[in-house]
Amino acid sequence: MIIKPGKLLGSIQEPADLRRKDRSELYQVCEELRQFIIDNVSVYGGHFGASLGVVELTVALHYVFNTPEDQLVWDVGHQAYGHKILTGRREKFHTNRFYKGISGFPKRKESNYDTFGVGHSSTSISAALGMAVANQYQHKDLQHIAVIGDGAMTGGIAFEGMNHAGFTNSNLLIILNDNCMSIDPNVGALKDYLTDITTSHTYNKMRDEVWKLLGKISKFGPNAQEIASKIENGLKSTLLRQSNLFESLKLRYFGPIDGHDINHLVSVLEDLKSIPGPKILHCVTVKGKGYALAEKDQTKWHAPGLFDKITGEIYKKTYDSPQPPKYQDVFGHTLVELAKQNEKIIGVTPAMPSGCSMNIMMKEMPERAFDVGIAEQHAVTFSAGMATQGIIPFCNIYSTFMQRAYDQVIHDVCLQELPVIFCMDRAGFAGADGPTHHGAYDIAYMRCLPNMIVSAPMNEQELRNLMYTAQLHNHGPFSIRYPRGNGMMPDWKTPFEEIEIGKGRKICDGEEVAILTIGHIGNYVTESRKMLAAEDLSPAHYDLRFVKPLDKELLHEVFSRYTKIVTVEDGCVMGGFGSAVLEFMADHGYSAKVIRLGIPDAVIEHGEQIELHDECGFGPKGIAEAVRTLVARPVAV
Amino acid sequence: MIIKPGKLLGSIQEPADLRRKDRSELYQVCEELRQFIIDNVSVYGGHFGASLGVVELTVALHYVFNTPEDQLVWDVGHQAYGHKILTGRREKFHTNRFYKGISGFPKRKESNYDTFGVGHSSTSISAALGMAVANQYQHKDLQHIAVIGDGAMTGGIAFEGMNHAGFTNSNLLIILNDNCMSIDPNVGALKDYLTDITTSHTYNKMRDEVWKLLGKISKFGPNAQEIASKIENGLKSTLLRQSNLFESLKLRYFGPIDGHDINHLVSVLEDLKSIPGPKILHCVTVKGKGYALAEKDQTKWHAPGLFDKITGEIYKKTYDSPQPPKYQDVFGHTLVELAKQNEKIIGVTPAMPSGCSMNIMMKEMPERAFDVGIAEQHAVTFSAGMATQGIIPFCNIYSTFMQRAYDQVIHDVCLQELPVIFCMDRAGFAGADGPTHHGAYDIAYMRCLPNMIVSAPMNEQELRNLMYTAQLHNHGPFSIRYPRGNGMMPDWKTPFEEIEIGKGRKICDGEEVAILTIGHIGNYVTESRKMLAAEDLSPAHYDLRFVKPLDKELLHEVFSRYTKIVTVEDGCVMGGFGSAVLEFMADHGYSAKVIRLGIPDAVIEHGEQIELHDECGFGPKGIAEAVRTLVARPVAV
Repeated sequence: MIIKPGKLLGSIQEPADLRRKDRSELYQVCEELRQFIIDNVSVYGGHFGASLGVVELTVALHYVFNTPEDQLVWDVGHQAYGHKILTGRREKFHTNRFYKGISGFPKRKESNYDTFGVGHSSTSISAALGMAVANQYQHKDLQHIAVIGDGAMTGGIAFEGMNHAGFTNSNLLIILNDNCMSIDPNVGALKDYLTDITTSHTYNKMRDEVWKLLGKISKFGPNAQEIASKIENGLKSTLLRQSNLFESLKLRYFGPIDGHDINHLVSVLEDLKSIPGPKILHCVTVKGKGYALAEKDQTKWHAPGLFDKITGEIYKKTYDSPQPPKYQDVFGHTLVELAKQNEKIIGVTPAMPSGCSMNIMMKEMPERAFDVGIAEQHAVTFSAGMATQGIIPFCNIYSTFMQRAYDQVIHDVCLQELPVIFCMDRAGFAGADGPTHHGAYDIAYMRCLPNMIVSAPMNEQELRNLMYTAQLHNHGPFSIRYPRGNGMMPDWKTPFEEIEIGKGRKICDGEEVAILTIGHIGNYVTESRKMLAAEDLSPAHYDLRFVKPLDKELLHEVFSRYTKIVTVEDGCVMGGFGSAVLEFMADHGYSAKVIRLGIPDAVIEHGEQIELHDECGFGPKGIAEAVRTLVARPVAV
Repeated sequence: MIIKPGKLLGSIQEPADLRRKDRSELYQVCEELRQFIIDNVSVYGGHFGASLGVVELTVALHYVFNTPEDQLVWDVGHQAYGHKILTGRREKFHTNRFYKGISGFPKRKESNYDTFGVGHSSTSISAALGMAVANQYQHKDLQHIAVIGDGAMTGGIAFEGMNHAGFTNSNLLIILNDNCMSIDPNVGALKDYLTDITTSHTYNKMRDEVWKLLGKISKFGPNAQEIASKIENGLKSTLLRQSNLFESLKLRYFGPIDGHDINHLVSVLEDLKSIPGPKILHCVTVKGKGYALAEKDQTKWHAPGLFDKITGEIYKKTYDSPQPPKYQDVFGHTLVELAKQNEKIIGVTPAMPSGCSMNIMMKEMPERAFDVGIAEQHAVTFSAGMATQGIIPFCNIYSTFMQRAYDQVIHDVCLQELPVIFCMDRAGFAGADGPTHHGAYDIAYMRCLPNMIVSAPMNEQELRNLMYTAQLHNHGPFSIRYPRGNGMMPDWKTPFEEIEIGKGRKICDGEEVAILTIGHIGNYVTESRKMLAAEDLSPAHYDLRFVKPLDKELLHEVFSRYTKIVTVEDGCVMGGFGSAVLEFMADHGYSAKVIRLGIPDAVIEHGEQIELHDECGFGPKGIAEAVRTLVARPVAV
């Protein structure tokens, strides 16, 4: 199904075309752009509310600034659909987020207009400042614009960037896209503060009080009125300017303005072009703007899946039989179950309550689940602090976002051997979100840390039992990684059983070859074995459960019985689980032919998980092929 | 030499003793504590200025609060000498920072008074908030105090912590120890802002202006005076409160107060004890307070080494012959040399200009070297932004601090294949600073990233040539790791030579065993080979130079000729260089007996580098021993 653009939008192939339009036409361009996004996302899926919220901002920015020479950086980037559509990608927009299609995020290799690859939040100020400083040094007179949401503003790097920016005289414009939301409602003191500014409460209150006093003064004669007015003006500039957090950081502050008033936006941006130095424009927008249901339930419509754009019905697949749950929901429900049994348990999530399903706990036990905002570093050290007081924190952070708290994991948790339980959702390929979101490196970067336990469940029951075990263990850091998407067990609510730490399991015996797997990806082996059975090949299968500590007993058994080994992991092969197995072999003098399957040393793009697994050779077919390769070749001497 | 404490200090074994003192005695306690620190550090070394700056704060905190039940967290921690001396460690304080002695930083395993291990900056607010929230949940009525410097305040996690804290009603007191310094002078907009608050410029200016107007009003009669006074009070509270960055984040702000007035400090802290909710006390202190030279040159006296406490003469070892330079100085001078040849080169350091010797460039080319404050995340993304504009950034971050920018290295640099050159100083064991500062993990966490080049020079010439090569290459990320301390070459200023990327070198041929090394640690092999020569053993030695890409040609040669291999690295053996070699073997069907030497999977404490290398078995003796082990045992089948 090809989505047709409106007439005006259809005439815009790139921003230069937009800039040739009369300003009076921009309102209509916005309408058509918004409609085009609705038409597309309803049919092809993707992020929704965020892009609708910045339609006017997108049009105004490309109208006023000379992109791509002027450098426009979109923080997080899932709001950049309008930007993509206006910058030469309208006709392939239906491939957005599909395998081999365009990326759901700005990406340098995709377009000159995508000045900086984004996906993780809060990077735009630092990146744009780097560009501004570089061009200042090179005597290039260009504009540099970072568009950042109020949610992303809570990430520490944004503050670091502002602290540096305010110290420079760089040509940087920060646009604060303030919609009070992350994926979930934004939290933290900053959010309240922005609301304060927006409603000008401080200023209004002060003005009222002063006016009351000034009213009394005015009875002293006609001159008093004039004096009162002078005082008020002094107050206004002082209060609005000096009371401002951003002005504290020496950024000139403008706003707040309505981010949906295209005309005013264009005027303000034109004005700001000529104001030198670092500055911030505060725009108030509505996530989901222009689609009533999305405005109303912004979390649900962040990325709703396919829907009927007329009725707003979100299509849900229906099944004849019960389906396995999402891993995240197994986590969410199990956490509540465990917390009911163990009052020491507390949940911590950095701005992902609905993404990791900790919203279940937040609803049932609001005093025991903390959304700390987009602040992974803080989430980990905050958890560490709690652990010192006898609390057992379940700190849930996507594998890809855990990268941002790496030092805190090492310095605040591992070195101190504190019992923080890390649940890493979206480990392995993230799917349509692509390389910025793939949880590719966590096995490698976690297993090299002292005191860290590294585990991954092969199914829902295992996840439950690992969570159960982790809180029983309650000694030192414990990490559990699991993928995005569904498990295997429609009937997943099994009774808890403790797992011996570092104990793997044999799934089935076999001949000649042993397949060693870690995590959910091990389920592929069933299919691989079926394929191989037709060729009279019957590899053994072991699910290691733990990358660290490795099950030495089990591995001694494996290497005593098999000299051909396939290791499989949904993580980078360089330094990962397979390498841990090689280390075991070297340390114990085993010699075997080993094929390590996993994510290769390359940037793997977006696509369905199975598409990517097949591409990288560790889907069911790839695993079977590795077994064939091993048996066809003699064991190396 | 035993340092004797003053009489009062000598009577204090722990804070309970201090709390039994009369308040009038505290001044003398401070004097004696300060003297004890001076006496100790001048003779035994260690950090100096920071601890002198918080003597009064330390005494006041332990006097007012009920430590260790009340939780006191020292950010960074190198200012906690006074704290250690007052909390049961005075008599072992002469072992501070020595092998097997007490740690130079607070450390949970060392004392109950050390509530949270620190070393890296900016973690205290998050940790103390975690404690406060945990104890609130557990209905424990305790005080929680984070002492954080203005330098540490620029780290993003501090902001994340404040944003969360302001949203809670936790019992948290943040003490901002404002001395305008990191190790080097603090930079960034926040610093200026703090100075603004301190001098109350805003308030003073506003008050003056309003008074001028109110003066005019007063002529309207006696009532007007009263009204004017009311307006002024309103202004004062509004301005002082609302103009405050911290109040913006909903932290109650108190101060600024003189951090060296012990009496006033005690009074203020007593008052704050009973004020509920999150709050911040702004103390102005002088780094090095009480030792005139240290007050005057704060960077030099951050950790001056041994000195004559009377004359202030800092002892320098003298040598008869020219000595090899520090690696950091080779970096610093070489960067300037290269920058003179290549105008695209820019230097970036997060608050370590003197630590990494980028101060040389800052002095010679101030417009081309950026100290961005304690803000590693920003430093990396800022560098990435510059790289998009054709700049070649040399971003110098200690290995241990690079952990804090891991996500930025992945997401902003590697995925985008941007040519940022990472120079990682203090890679391997950091020495006396201990586990928080050891650069133990970088080989493992860097080599698993796509597009990343991982290299380490064996000597000064190699460092120069790697730096030269990196800026010539100018394509994708390039990391160069080197250790703390001195190189090998008194005559180090060799002409630049390009190195083929991924090319190792054979140092010497040998028999039976090959030793593969990476980095400076390879120099130990010379000594090991001497020991072994006496036993008629002659292992070959290869310096790989690159962990990634590995030199395949060279490794094929090695594995064709040798079946007994020792790998040596000053980094974690789990997932490190040795594992990369094992991966090569597996991928190419080689079977050899391999002993991997390096940092074991444990927390290794502080000590001289050679002490730690020997402890971990990869000093010269350890390497020789590994060779003996290999030749004594048959190759595994």
